[in-house]
Amino acid sequence: MKEMATETMISAVAERLERNGFQVHKVVGVNRTILGAIGDKRTVDIREFEILDGVHEVIRITEPYKLSSRTFHPEQTVVRVKEASFGDEQITVIAGPCSVESEEQLFTIAKEVKNAGAKVLRGGAFKPRTSPYSFQGLGKEGLKLLKAAGEEFKMATVSEVMENAQIELLVDNVDILQIGARNMQNFSLLREVGKLKKPVLLKRGMAATIEELLMAAEYLMSGGNYQVILCERGIRTFENYTRNTLDISAIPVTKKLSHLPIIADPSHGTGIRDKVAPMARAAVAAGADGLAIEVHHDPDRALSDGAQSLYPNQFSRLMEELRMIAWAIGKKI
Amino acid sequence: MKEMATETMISAVAERLERNGFQVHKVVGVNRTILGAIGDKRTVDIREFEILDGVHEVIRITEPYKLSSRTFHPEQTVVRVKEASFGDEQITVIAGPCSVESEEQLFTIAKEVKNAGAKVLRGGAFKPRTSPYSFQGLGKEGLKLLKAAGEEFKMATVSEVMENAQIELLVDNVDILQIGARNMQNFSLLREVGKLKKPVLLKRGMAATIEELLMAAEYLMSGGNYQVILCERGIRTFENYTRNTLDISAIPVTKKLSHLPIIADPSHGTGIRDKVAPMARAAVAAGADGLAIEVHHDPDRALSDGAQSLYPNQFSRLMEELRMIAWAIGKKI
Amino acid sequence: MKEMATETMISAVAERLERNGFQVHKVVGVNRTILGAIGDKRTVDIREFEILDGVHEVIRITEPYKLSSRTFHPEQTVVRVKEASFGDEQITVIAGPCSVESEEQLFTIAKEVKNAGAKVLRGGAFKPRTSPYSFQGLGKEGLKLLKAAGEEFKMATVSEVMENAQIELLVDNVDILQIGARNMQNFSLLREVGKLKKPVLLKRGMAATIEELLMAAEYLMSGGNYQVILCERGIRTFENYTRNTLDISAIPVTKKLSHLPIIADPSHGTGIRDKVAPMARAAVAAGADGLAIEVHHDPDRALSDGAQSLYPNQFSRLMEELRMIAWAIGKKI
Amino acid sequence: MKEMATETMISAVAERLERNGFQVHKVVGVNRTILGAIGDKRTVDIREFEILDGVHEVIRITEPYKLSSRTFHPEQTVVRVKEASFGDEQITVIAGPCSVESEEQLFTIAKEVKNAGAKVLRGGAFKPRTSPYSFQGLGKEGLKLLKAAGEEFKMATVSEVMENAQIELLVDNVDILQIGARNMQNFSLLREVGKLKKPVLLKRGMAATIEELLMAAEYLMSGGNYQVILCERGIRTFENYTRNTLDISAIPVTKKLSHLPIIADPSHGTGIRDKVAPMARAAVAAGADGLAIEVHHDPDRALSDGAQSLYPNQFSRLMEELRMIAWAIGKKI
Repeated sequence: MKEMATETMISAVAERLERNGFQVHKVVGVNRTILGAIGDKRTVDIREFEILDGVHEVIRITEPYKLSSRTFHPEQTVVRVKEASFGDEQITVIAGPCSVESEEQLFTIAKEVKNAGAKVLRGGAFKPRTSPYSFQGLGKEGLKLLKAAGEEFKMATVSEVMENAQIELLVDNVDILQIGARNMQNFSLLREVGKLKKPVLLKRGMAATIEELLMAAEYLMSGGNYQVILCERGIRTFENYTRNTLDISAIPVTKKLSHLPIIADPSHGTGIRDKVAPMARAAVAAGADGLAIEVHHDPDRALSDGAQSLYPNQFSRLMEELRMIAWAIGKKI
Repeated sequence: MKEMATETMISAVAERLERNGFQVHKVVGVNRTILGAIGDKRTVDIREFEILDGVHEVIRITEPYKLSSRTFHPEQTVVRVKEASFGDEQITVIAGPCSVESEEQLFTIAKEVKNAGAKVLRGGAFKPRTSPYSFQGLGKEGLKLLKAAGEEFKMATVSEVMENAQIELLVDNVDILQIGARNMQNFSLLREVGKLKKPVLLKRGMAATIEELLMAAEYLMSGGNYQVILCERGIRTFENYTRNTLDISAIPVTKKLSHLPIIADPSHGTGIRDKVAPMARAAVAAGADGLAIEVHHDPDRALSDGAQSLYPNQFSRLMEELRMIAWAIGKKI
Repeated sequence: MKEMATETMISAVAERLERNGFQVHKVVGVNRTILGAIGDKRTVDIREFEILDGVHEVIRITEPYKLSSRTFHPEQTVVRVKEASFGDEQITVIAGPCSVESEEQLFTIAKEVKNAGAKVLRGGAFKPRTSPYSFQGLGKEGLKLLKAAGEEFKMATVSEVMENAQIELLVDNVDILQIGARNMQNFSLLREVGKLKKPVLLKRGMAATIEELLMAAEYLMSGGNYQVILCERGIRTFENYTRNTLDISAIPVTKKLSHLPIIADPSHGTGIRDKVAPMARAAVAAGADGLAIEVHHDPDRALSDGAQSLYPNQFSRLMEELRMIAWAIGKKI
Repeated sequence: MKEMATETMISAVAERLERNGFQVHKVVGVNRTILGAIGDKRTVDIREFEILDGVHEVIRITEPYKLSSRTFHPEQTVVRVKEASFGDEQITVIAGPCSVESEEQLFTIAKEVKNAGAKVLRGGAFKPRTSPYSFQGLGKEGLKLLKAAGEEFKMATVSEVMENAQIELLVDNVDILQIGARNMQNFSLLREVGKLKKPVLLKRGMAATIEELLMAAEYLMSGGNYQVILCERGIRTFENYTRNTLDISAIPVTKKLSHLPIIADPSHGTGIRDKVAPMARAAVAAGADGLAIEVHHDPDRALSDGAQSLYPNQFSRLMEELRMIAWAIGKKI
């Protein structure tokens, strides 16, 4: 309450809190009175109280997420998909082209990344493109190719789902559904995917706080889908030399707040090929459970994001470096 | 090109540009050579060239949007809906509750805002909520009530569409479809709504640049729907006293870059009731074509966003102030 | 405290708080225990407690500034300088060139802005330039010219002080000392200027929160200088169409938190001439106590910031618009 | 130029460019004409041209810094101070308390960090504190203690200089002068320190782009002081779980743009003890030339920043991990 709040104001606020189901504790300080409201009421909009007469500030003590919180679930969650696992001492690398372009392209790249140690094959079939005039992905045909490549090279697969109507197609063809950064708060999509029993790779939105990322995970989990892998992929800041600013510190922060595994995507996080390897190494050194990296055997001709794709030999060399860094911190690749 | 770029490097880049359909002009400067690439190739990813040997930087001269650009369409677009118009000398105010809660609530508020001078009635039926545990809207029933209120008070209506499956319901019941900030880059939704012949209120995403807002409009327009009203509703910055930072300068900037009308939403832009009126006045003074304002007759009991809703008498007083400000800059309300 | 905090942990934290002079109240909730620490200890670093065993989060209830807070000083401060006043119903406009360049330039501009209604003449003599190769100001000679122009046109004057060694020169020649955005947290400078009895125009840093702006004011005031005028001049955001994002909402927010007057600088806040007038109108409509606007009679030849300077006739026209907006909200220019 | 720019407008701009000493090349494209201006004119304010009639956009091709640019100085700069070196295969760690508090404190910590492998001892004597009520440092006495500790443990030393009047004292007592983040654009200070022949540790401002950091280095170097060590210490973003967002990608970016060494400060970059080690590992993995880390033997009683200081045993363990990571990328500690 404000310094000048009257007893009447204080009582009015206390009564209103009680009406909302809170138990109220009044603490009288030197300059002001504090009302402590006890109760597990995550849905209350605290701004409702901020505008009452005499109120100085309302502060939420309990975080608004529960299923994704480490407080209520201290053990680390491990998401297992075929031979891949996210959340244990294994650092799992997802690799592949930005978009599936053709059988030849996908199989060539899949073979290379498999040999270098990647456990999961990525490849976009439905592409969220900033411009309506850009290549939008092969759709169903792309998913079929991805499935075939996964079987051929014994890799788990991941691809992005952009709308509810695509869910069935994705479920039939890939092992992990990706929800992209621009859809992190597409609540309709989160709700539908939350009804599945399939692992989900949930990317942090460019303007999303870590708390909002965990709230998005909460949407998935409150529907019953607990196999959520979080992914840091860069936030929007004033610095625009890089496409986004990969928030490496989100990795240790999220690991403390949540039991869900978290990986990093240095390809989208930087947008520039020669920054991918340093940032991949940084993410692993900071404790990431895995990485998602774009690789293309002929990036000059890639239909999307060629500029941020590694050549296969760069990817192999990076995997070697990552192996040593993983070992330095007690993990393995 | 870099200072140390060799002739071979320069030729390689020039050839590659030509292969992409550009006409190339070579300008030899004191320290470096510049290659000017001429051609209307909006879909080229400029990063593809940034990574070539000897390249220092690639800069796009032409903006990537066309249909929404004032360059190609100098006359101001005016979107007309019933008695409301956006883009002419009239400043049009959209008002109403955050969520439709009941017939009594909606009709009470509609009557008040109509009397105060609002031309369009807003009311959410499908609500994008950060928490899965919050009130998610009345859905179809809410839209029916909104339609009835619009007819009763002779107001145009607007409500948010969150996914493709809701489009039909919205089209049948409201005059303007709103695409929310979190869906500004939900390209699946943009594509479907772009096929309609209904006015769209497109809100700027919290992390979206003005260019990205115009690219989202481009999605709608490239589908054939030209009745797009843009809406500034606050961007995410480091300052967190207000919920978002309402970017008032986006109003004159957008008016210069695009022929589309732009309004401001000071309710979501600030998130705090006593900041709504000053920011509404500021938006009008800066040249906005309209405003979207949340009003509730009993905000303490509102099911969502009560804290940022004006009381009807505050709204009336604000409309009086706005009338004088509009007059000061040669417009009217 | 965390959910799993033991009684020992809770006691240890409580004891440590008491050792720091706080009175401790223990509130036992459903899931966790909250310790309320009562005491006016603004200098405690709350992070010291965050790292103790069992602590979930530490939240400061009292704002860390006192002299600049409206809580402890509810009456609005009015800073009066010659015929100008900041903080009452008068909206005071500061105008003039970015840099003092010559007697002819300064007197020409001073006459124009005086005629249009400006009460304070601005003109830089020491210029903070991003590049060491740019014009750095006329120094002492510039201040002498500013003083002469102020006397000739009966206007108060303001100019920037960049370091302690310049203070004496400024004090002798101008009426208001400006502390620039880049020096807002130059604590050495704040401390010295705080010892003066001269009005100070304190500009918000590009990355400074409103709280930090008020803490910088606190430095000045704790030294004994209470004549502080705050100035919003744009914050750094991801949007880079404008040079900075003028945070108009900072005006009503600061007016609520502090009793100090606040003005806006739309010239630096936008960096583009044709955005200055809309943003100046917006700032006044939002409740600013004044404006600082750059005006140049020949901006194409200005030695600095010509691109954001208004022509005298644009400035006169703007003053007319501002007069009507001021009147609309019960103020005057 | 704009699509609708007339020949008269185009000629006027071309003439004006020539008047400014540029050589002009005219490129006529499909939709618009482009004027290429050739000439090494770093001081021109490009906005001057943006406001001319018919101009669409002005883009600077040459970076505005020269002495700090790798383009003009491809070989990596190595700054050597006693046994420490920054910029070669050695990763150099600066460690010590935030503030010098007493001889016992400083010597205890110095011994620990020396034993763990730190080569440079840090310790603040003049402290930039957000609050005027916080501990401001021991001043001269602190510097004397730092010098003595450096001699005792054969370590180079670094401490912050906050204003010109302190320079002499710093020069006499420490090996490296630090310019803090809040003073990165204190051009008066940069100019004076630029006249010295002492190594400088220049910290990136919280809202500074990488280009602005290099422009600040340019100030130092244009005065003749080439021994500049850059330091990434976190930028201000919307994410406020951490105190700042340590921009790890700034490390590879800066190494590409500039020949100057760059280190990272994970203590200030995160502000939370348990995030320091992961971010220190990440910085080294990303290619940093060194680190600056706060260590305190009794952080609970530290007079400043105790919450982000490592205990000596945490620091030793971290040094072990860093050694392995350095080895993994072909460097050493």
